[in-house]
Amino acid sequence: MKFGHFDDVNKEYVITSPRTPLPWINYLGCEDFFSLKSNTCGGYSFYKDAKLLRLTRYRYNNVPLDSNGLYYFIKDGDTVWNPGWMPTKTELDDYKCRHGLGYSVFEGKKNGISAVLTDFVPMGTACEVNKLTLTNESDEKKDFTLFSYVEFCLWNAMDDMTNFQRNFSTGEVEIHGSTIYHKTEYRERRNHYAIFSVNTDIDGFDTDRDSFLGAYGENRAPEVVMTGKAKNSVASGWAPVGSHQINISLAPGESRDLVFVLGYVENKKDEKWEGLNKVNRKPAEAMLTKFDTTEKADQALADLKAYWNGLLSHFTVSSSEEKLDRMVNIWHQYQCMVTFNMSRSASYFESGIGRGMGFRDSCQDLLGFVHLIPDRARQRILDIASTQFEDGSAYHQYQPLTKKGNADIGSGFNDDPLWLIAGTAAYIKETGDYSILDEITPYDNDASKATDFMEHLRRSFNYTVNHLGPHGLPLIGRADWNDCLNLNCFSEEPGESFQTFGPSEGPNAESVFIAGMFVKYGKDYAAICRHRGLEEEAKEAEKQIEKMEQTVLDAGWDGEWYLRAYDHYKHKVGSKECEEGKIFIEPQGFCVIAEIGLKDGYCLKAMESVEKHLDTKYGIVLLQPCYTRYHVELGEITSYPGGYKENAGIFCHNNPWISIAETVVGRGNRAWQVYTRTCPAYIEDISEIHRTEPYVYSQMIAGKDAPNFGEAKNSWLTGTAAWTFLDVSQYILGIRPDYDGLVVDPCIPASLDGFSAKRDFRGVTYHITVKNPNGAEKGVASMTVDGTPVEGNMIPFDGSKKEVQVEVVMG
Amino acid sequence: MKFGHFDDVNKEYVITSPRTPLPWINYLGCEDFFSLKSNTCGGYSFYKDAKLLRLTRYRYNNVPLDSNGLYYFIKDGDTVWNPGWMPTKTELDDYKCRHGLGYSVFEGKKNGISAVLTDFVPMGTACEVNKLTLTNESDEKKDFTLFSYVEFCLWNAMDDMTNFQRNFSTGEVEIHGSTIYHKTEYRERRNHYAIFSVNTDIDGFDTDRDSFLGAYGENRAPEVVMTGKAKNSVASGWAPVGSHQINISLAPGESRDLVFVLGYVENKKDEKWEGLNKVNRKPAEAMLTKFDTTEKADQALADLKAYWNGLLSHFTVSSSEEKLDRMVNIWHQYQCMVTFNMSRSASYFESGIGRGMGFRDSCQDLLGFVHLIPDRARQRILDIASTQFEDGSAYHQYQPLTKKGNADIGSGFNDDPLWLIAGTAAYIKETGDYSILDEITPYDNDASKATDFMEHLRRSFNYTVNHLGPHGLPLIGRADWNDCLNLNCFSEEPGESFQTFGPSEGPNAESVFIAGMFVKYGKDYAAICRHRGLEEEAKEAEKQIEKMEQTVLDAGWDGEWYLRAYDHYKHKVGSKECEEGKIFIEPQGFCVIAEIGLKDGYCLKAMESVEKHLDTKYGIVLLQPCYTRYHVELGEITSYPGGYKENAGIFCHNNPWISIAETVVGRGNRAWQVYTRTCPAYIEDISEIHRTEPYVYSQMIAGKDAPNFGEAKNSWLTGTAAWTFLDVSQYILGIRPDYDGLVVDPCIPASLDGFSAKRDFRGVTYHITVKNPNGAEKGVASMTVDGTPVEGNMIPFDGSKKEVQVEVVMG
Repeated sequence: MKFGHFDDVNKEYVITSPRTPLPWINYLGCEDFFSLKSNTCGGYSFYKDAKLLRLTRYRYNNVPLDSNGLYYFIKDGDTVWNPGWMPTKTELDDYKCRHGLGYSVFEGKKNGISAVLTDFVPMGTACEVNKLTLTNESDEKKDFTLFSYVEFCLWNAMDDMTNFQRNFSTGEVEIHGSTIYHKTEYRERRNHYAIFSVNTDIDGFDTDRDSFLGAYGENRAPEVVMTGKAKNSVASGWAPVGSHQINISLAPGESRDLVFVLGYVENKKDEKWEGLNKVNRKPAEAMLTKFDTTEKADQALADLKAYWNGLLSHFTVSSSEEKLDRMVNIWHQYQCMVTFNMSRSASYFESGIGRGMGFRDSCQDLLGFVHLIPDRARQRILDIASTQFEDGSAYHQYQPLTKKGNADIGSGFNDDPLWLIAGTAAYIKETGDYSILDEITPYDNDASKATDFMEHLRRSFNYTVNHLGPHGLPLIGRADWNDCLNLNCFSEEPGESFQTFGPSEGPNAESVFIAGMFVKYGKDYAAICRHRGLEEEAKEAEKQIEKMEQTVLDAGWDGEWYLRAYDHYKHKVGSKECEEGKIFIEPQGFCVIAEIGLKDGYCLKAMESVEKHLDTKYGIVLLQPCYTRYHVELGEITSYPGGYKENAGIFCHNNPWISIAETVVGRGNRAWQVYTRTCPAYIEDISEIHRTEPYVYSQMIAGKDAPNFGEAKNSWLTGTAAWTFLDVSQYILGIRPDYDGLVVDPCIPASLDGFSAKRDFRGVTYHITVKNPNGAEKGVASMTVDGTPVEGNMIPFDGSKKEVQVEVVMG
Repeated sequence: MKFGHFDDVNKEYVITSPRTPLPWINYLGCEDFFSLKSNTCGGYSFYKDAKLLRLTRYRYNNVPLDSNGLYYFIKDGDTVWNPGWMPTKTELDDYKCRHGLGYSVFEGKKNGISAVLTDFVPMGTACEVNKLTLTNESDEKKDFTLFSYVEFCLWNAMDDMTNFQRNFSTGEVEIHGSTIYHKTEYRERRNHYAIFSVNTDIDGFDTDRDSFLGAYGENRAPEVVMTGKAKNSVASGWAPVGSHQINISLAPGESRDLVFVLGYVENKKDEKWEGLNKVNRKPAEAMLTKFDTTEKADQALADLKAYWNGLLSHFTVSSSEEKLDRMVNIWHQYQCMVTFNMSRSASYFESGIGRGMGFRDSCQDLLGFVHLIPDRARQRILDIASTQFEDGSAYHQYQPLTKKGNADIGSGFNDDPLWLIAGTAAYIKETGDYSILDEITPYDNDASKATDFMEHLRRSFNYTVNHLGPHGLPLIGRADWNDCLNLNCFSEEPGESFQTFGPSEGPNAESVFIAGMFVKYGKDYAAICRHRGLEEEAKEAEKQIEKMEQTVLDAGWDGEWYLRAYDHYKHKVGSKECEEGKIFIEPQGFCVIAEIGLKDGYCLKAMESVEKHLDTKYGIVLLQPCYTRYHVELGEITSYPGGYKENAGIFCHNNPWISIAETVVGRGNRAWQVYTRTCPAYIEDISEIHRTEPYVYSQMIAGKDAPNFGEAKNSWLTGTAAWTFLDVSQYILGIRPDYDGLVVDPCIPASLDGFSAKRDFRGVTYHITVKNPNGAEKGVASMTVDGTPVEGNMIPFDGSKKEVQVEVVMG
């Protein structure tokens, strides 16, 4: 069952029923100001940091679902409705929500009035613009009243929902003309306020929530709206809100445009005041003049669309697979960009007040967006590396505002250092920019301890070399990629952190997954050494890698698949010997990607075992059989009911690992099957089961052990975005940047007769046509570059060209 | 305007309109299980700790106000209603909420059906009992359907509202017969679950919120209730709830009782399971058998009422002032007990997830409840003292579960140590139990550093002696009683703690308030020394006290009133020289209570200044003129808009200080005026202005500088409870325990012709009659004890008696 459809021309998903299984959201903003926007106008806005500078108040896990947003009420006689359905939930004669790239459009019609609300965050200005077009589509004059409404957050989202003893007394506003200034705490240490304004005269306003809603009132029927008369309330403490009343009169066929702006405004500390308790309004007025006409608002939206079209033009594909093209050309890349912007901070499942940026998360996100904005990728890499410790280990998280490591969680996640190599390798392959290796980069943000960035990579690589366990496999520390596999913690009491309780880092527990990573990214490290002329070091690294490969085959192979780990007691994890959790997905993915034992058939065997033991119709589960009880020696993974999260859920993040791994063993049909089973566009038809947005990935889909098998959770902010784009673009379509040029190495389903793609790479645009006349799954039979045959599948880089035509024939 | 009335016979406040200005709540529970209960059945339950073991989910600051509770829906044809009005808000034919001592009764009638819901937490069992009596008052048969409903919290209230990435996947329940088991996280480290049950067979159940409410559904109209048909949903992740469906058929005049139980159940770690994923239900079943008949439930309620009547019988008064009697005999003492139970943790303004027990708060609370349950007071004193540091300073807060000091906030609130003397003196005066001084008591919870408790008092006293500033006044540290007067912090950035940012403890900033405390409680310390035979130490202490008195008169007097403090720059705070904040309430109260300069007229002068500068019709404001801007050198106090909180709000806590101080200068009329102006029963008639409950105090009433002048905030958990009871019982009525007996020293309005009181004291019951034939405000002309005249106003203690008759004539 679908609740809408894709509009590929406009790069939109068009939702045609407000009753989506869960709120389906979009992200407005790509610089400093962000708004989460659901298909019924729910959501909230923040400036830079979703915890510390939240403009508007949203209530997670509320009843009704998705409560609070930036709402417009139309009171037309006795009928009160919203263009986005919520919060009145008045049935509309017509409803559409178009989620586009950085904007959302809500089209509502009721009783002859049409309302088209276009919400976006313009480039270069810290505000959300709402253009509302009201049209009288009836053949009678229409007189009705419009009320805007937003509830302000008192800035710190955490404090806002806990400290009422203080917060109920601090709210303050000013009202000047059509602009409401929310200035809570501006009187003291803040030098910023929020504004909510409209480009027309108003007939009334409200700024006090209880006045607007009435006693025990509800968003679905605010007293002011129901009576049709604003109270001109001035908030003093309690809950400041912003509402404008505008009386509208439209002749038949007549339209009227209104432009509302919700903005964040800062003043310099010595320019805060215009007078006693009167804020300096100049910067607010300057912001508002940027959008004070319909034309200016339209131009800002056009600029935003041009920005996104430019970004997405770096990689496009055209094939007979409409859904493939749609995902690659639009939604994969869009989700990658949003994930880069947000890290894991603010979604409808991440409350925005928790952890900062993840070291591992950010490195993986790089894999998805590096081709879009390499400059910001470069900065991100250096920011991350600056939080690294001198021994090569890393803070597991860091704060986006300060860019400093988060001491609460600390280090000890032993895969982290290797991800820095992964991200850097991707950056260098994309850009050819080795100069990043020379950047002087601190450790633990201490400039006095800085070295060049190459030394950071060296210490990252050596961190694994220096932290091996009894079998010679890497020690796991607090956890590896699977944050919930905690082999050194042994927590017995509720409330303890599964990751940081207990010894956390022990001498025995080893990770086969990290071993796979080490082999895979160790090869990149060796390649980078070699490009830097460090031949000896490259050779030494390769020796370590070979040794690790052998160790995995000796101690990390269970007969039919790769082991997951050894626990503190040196017992196997993810083995046929185990009672539960006999086989895990992660080492199968990464050891095959690393090609450990490839030529001896280990990789194919592992892939067959995944298919046999972990496959479901909705994707590949993380492990089997699920854990039915808590194992104190395994940690958080066993705390979840079976089928959810890491305990045998379909963790979308590592499905593309298997798809990539299948391309390594050359099984294009299977790689494709794995890709499409969790791919949003391919499962749009089961939206009533999948429930989250059909245009982006979720972190997790309930596995077959769960009652809600097939139901997804935690959409939008997931490493799945980057990994899937990597999978489909570089391994399935096979257009893969390498150190010395662009490789074309498709591994596609036999039924696909080819495709064409456009790929910008180091300033050159490649027009690539792949033909698959004989239904191959992998293998390049021939390649021509600008008409000239080339050996192999690497296009030698030639920076003197602007456009290059490439033809590849598979076979 | 009133929204109800007092029922003194039943010791209840009877609310007759559900639309109170704010939710008016009650506290059920006085041991380990607690429920907050509003007049419309809103609220939540927890076991011991409102943050860590919260049973049910409540949403603070929500829309509609007061969302979520333990609700019962009656679906009678097309009409759906609740006995407590919320959440359907269906207009009732009759509505009453009776808040009694530890129980609340909701009486709703609609269309011939009467529902009487009696909610209470029984003594000795960790559960809330809801007895629901349904009566058909019509003359036709009535067939209708009852649905219960509660939403479970996933135990940790903080995590519950932030960590959705995990929490949406952990919810689990079991259903057995009529009992719903909420067992989220029981599979792992918890050994406790919640139950919601009813003592009859059910016709259906729901445990999944979305199933019960329907998609985008609301509490006011759950889909299951509206359709009249439970779905028998079994929660798996998302939001577990508990709902029973019971089909009811009543003949005209027929009644039916149902007993619902919401309980908290723990199992031993090795007795958690009955089978794979099946909880051990035995203790739950044992709990339920305690309340499985109407008779058992009624008996449990009767036992509860007997408990409270016993508690409140220790002090009663009878006079011509009905409101005085009502407050003294019921509500003052009730609020004292609730405040003792909760400290400052869980109210409708304290979210229950913040700070622990306050050192200063708990010591002050003692003053109010020590006569009710001296044994628990003794334990509390020793718990508090165990968090003290070896130098006499103290953790400002400590955790109720661990009883350990809270390192986040630390120490440095320089009034804290003196409050320990205050609480101990009150305990000894009440009980005559000097043995507490011998208790071996640790420092910082370290038993190896323990001394006897007397040494704790010594170090408390000496802490002030050893921390004096440039004028010889006590150094203020991070703050004194006024947590918002931060003279050593200088915070410039939002989010910094006003109390702990910056140097926090400096060499210059001094507090005249602490000086007053030192003189007042120093005298108690000297008296305790003397009773222990430490005559030399007593004399030395008295020397220090005299010196401090002189210092206050030399450096702490501003001409017309006592100064508040000196800031870091040695500038005066609370002086006529100041631009804003010229006069503060606190030093006027405490320096007069300490009788500093009494004989020389300073005290009377200070009281006159309070009346002249700080008085308003709704109470005495904390300071004047209010601060209109942020003063970085004064801290949080200047962060509030004028008229709110410490910035010139009517801080109820220190109004009784002034009332007591007025008794010191002998002005009974004025002491009475100050008492009655903020006293709930006396301002019941302006409930539409005051807004909070008319039966308990609030922390703060908006001062004259605020737009909402007269509006109260933060009701229930406030030191006002203890201080006011101290004021009215010991200083206005004047029945005051002292080291060697009970003093009778009334200071009453001239218009009051006397009163009689019953007072239990050290096992003896005193029947005291005070006559005021000549309209005196203070002074005992004569006193007889059991018919024998006695000199002075002290009743010599005679433990051989059980009952003592006392007659006092004022004049």
